[in-house]
Amino acid sequence: MIPKSYRQVVLARRPPGEPAESDFRIEEVAMPVPGTNEVLVRVVYMSLDPYMRGRMREQASYAKPVGIGDVMEGGTVGEVVQSNNPAFKAGDVVEGRLGWREYGLSAGHNLRLIDRALAPISTANGILGMPGMTAWFGLYEIGQPKPGETVVVSAASGAVGQTVGQLAKISGCRVVGIAGGAKKCAFVKDELGFDAVVDYKAGRLDADLAAACPNGIDVYFDNVGGVVTDAVIPLLNFWARVPLCGSISAYNAEKPEMGPRLLWPMVGRRVRMQGFIVSDFAPFFEPARRRMGELVRAGRLKYKEDIVEGIERAPRAFIGLLRGENFGKLQVKLGPEPGA
Amino acid sequence: MIPKSYRQVVLARRPPGEPAESDFRIEEVAMPVPGTNEVLVRVVYMSLDPYMRGRMREQASYAKPVGIGDVMEGGTVGEVVQSNNPAFKAGDVVEGRLGWREYGLSAGHNLRLIDRALAPISTANGILGMPGMTAWFGLYEIGQPKPGETVVVSAASGAVGQTVGQLAKISGCRVVGIAGGAKKCAFVKDELGFDAVVDYKAGRLDADLAAACPNGIDVYFDNVGGVVTDAVIPLLNFWARVPLCGSISAYNAEKPEMGPRLLWPMVGRRVRMQGFIVSDFAPFFEPARRRMGELVRAGRLKYKEDIVEGIERAPRAFIGLLRGENFGKLQVKLGPEPGA
Repeated sequence: MIPKSYRQVVLARRPPGEPAESDFRIEEVAMPVPGTNEVLVRVVYMSLDPYMRGRMREQASYAKPVGIGDVMEGGTVGEVVQSNNPAFKAGDVVEGRLGWREYGLSAGHNLRLIDRALAPISTANGILGMPGMTAWFGLYEIGQPKPGETVVVSAASGAVGQTVGQLAKISGCRVVGIAGGAKKCAFVKDELGFDAVVDYKAGRLDADLAAACPNGIDVYFDNVGGVVTDAVIPLLNFWARVPLCGSISAYNAEKPEMGPRLLWPMVGRRVRMQGFIVSDFAPFFEPARRRMGELVRAGRLKYKEDIVEGIERAPRAFIGLLRGENFGKLQVKLGPEPGA
Repeated sequence: MIPKSYRQVVLARRPPGEPAESDFRIEEVAMPVPGTNEVLVRVVYMSLDPYMRGRMREQASYAKPVGIGDVMEGGTVGEVVQSNNPAFKAGDVVEGRLGWREYGLSAGHNLRLIDRALAPISTANGILGMPGMTAWFGLYEIGQPKPGETVVVSAASGAVGQTVGQLAKISGCRVVGIAGGAKKCAFVKDELGFDAVVDYKAGRLDADLAAACPNGIDVYFDNVGGVVTDAVIPLLNFWARVPLCGSISAYNAEKPEMGPRLLWPMVGRRVRMQGFIVSDFAPFFEPARRRMGELVRAGRLKYKEDIVEGIERAPRAFIGLLRGENFGKLQVKLGPEPGA
């Protein structure tokens, strides 16, 4: 049943700008044998997320960089195929940070058992996983939305953005998404029910955003930075909150790009801007996941996934993610779901 | 005793960039007679502060702009010369926002009686007035310094900066000032006792600041924005706080200047940046003023004032303030102190 080898993706070199497929290398390695207390997991869904670009840089940020020749880091959902750990048994579905690989070994303490009855298992990489938690805690703990306020979210059709907007709607806000292209914009407005959407690729970003936000902006959930954020800042209301979740527009840049200085307007309007990393809230994930699971089951929280098949497609899919080519939460499916 | 007329400074036109003296007009107006409940005040010290540049713009920010032909706004300390208000009597020393004028009329509710035993009366425009409150609340409520942390303050010899740094020292922090020129830098280090000072005019800002902050920066009290702030951001530690007090480098600009985009580094480091206006904390001024008064009397909190004489010199002094030409809290003395 368990093959003698599996494939993994390692970082071949650090790209100076936009990554190329040649910055990654696919390796075939021998299947490990789990030692005392260890668990062997067959990965089914491998998550691809923008933060991974930061791990490819030499400088440490909030986490250590991936070393040259090391397996790319990342979240995974998989099936336990062999276990020497009393907490897990073969057939269990688990979530853990096993990286870009088809099989992974774990000592067990970083694995989380997934309740398959809750939602499809891929959601453990998405709306009920890291991106969903990012949306929940960034919006509620930092954004602190109030009913009637205007909440703007960039990368609105992405894994985090789609959840932020729907949660803000449930919380009684007027929600405006910013996304790229007619297809994503239609999805955000028609399927997710945002009040308005602005296509940042349409060439009238400032005017369209102002028109979509007649009462200004109270919360801006920033996933992108750059020119999109430049357009938001002048519309921020007094006491606005800006959760800084990511700056995907800057991830491939070798050094900071130039943009208009934004600080002065923030002084008098008492804008609060705050960076956060989802793991800061790890002790509080379970109750948030339970509430979000209920909303998903009730059909009040939708999610869209973009699933690519085969680990050999991961580098190309990741490069596209940084270009905004994905449509929904990007994952790589490496094999059949358990029981399928 | 009371003359028949007095002088005031009005806004003649809105300067597009750096103000010129011709943007102001000095007028001689008839002395008013106080009506029911009104108080006539002879201004002794007229405060000049960077925020006034914002009032000269057409766009409202957190406060309404000064109208063309209207008296420039501002804080003042003066002597009551006539009173129909039971709360004040001739000879009282009061603080209030009477504007750029030699005499001012007030209905009384915006005047605050000053205890002359506490400190020299000019401090009511400085360390025990608006700039002092700005330092106290920005540092403690937003900056939240902890012992051993590194606090950096820009415009370190200015009215707010000198107080921020000394308070942070009292609170057990390592304090680094940023100021322009050898004279200001020597004052900040030798007289105010900052741990280090960086001369932003010396041409090695990035390197000098990094050398002065071997453990990074935990609190950056930003009075200036621009290239100084650009140099600070890369040195901010995890969970750093940035009270945004002002952006004097931008006040004369017609539209935002370009600078390196700063948001991404703030995400992973969980930097919190927050704009504030001192009046937000008005209900809490009195206890803060009492504590700061005690520190002043104990010699633990020093202050340096830059006093210009005669209302006709106010426009020129204000233009110099925006250029950083003042040395300490800038005030215009319009007449003798009561009893002097």
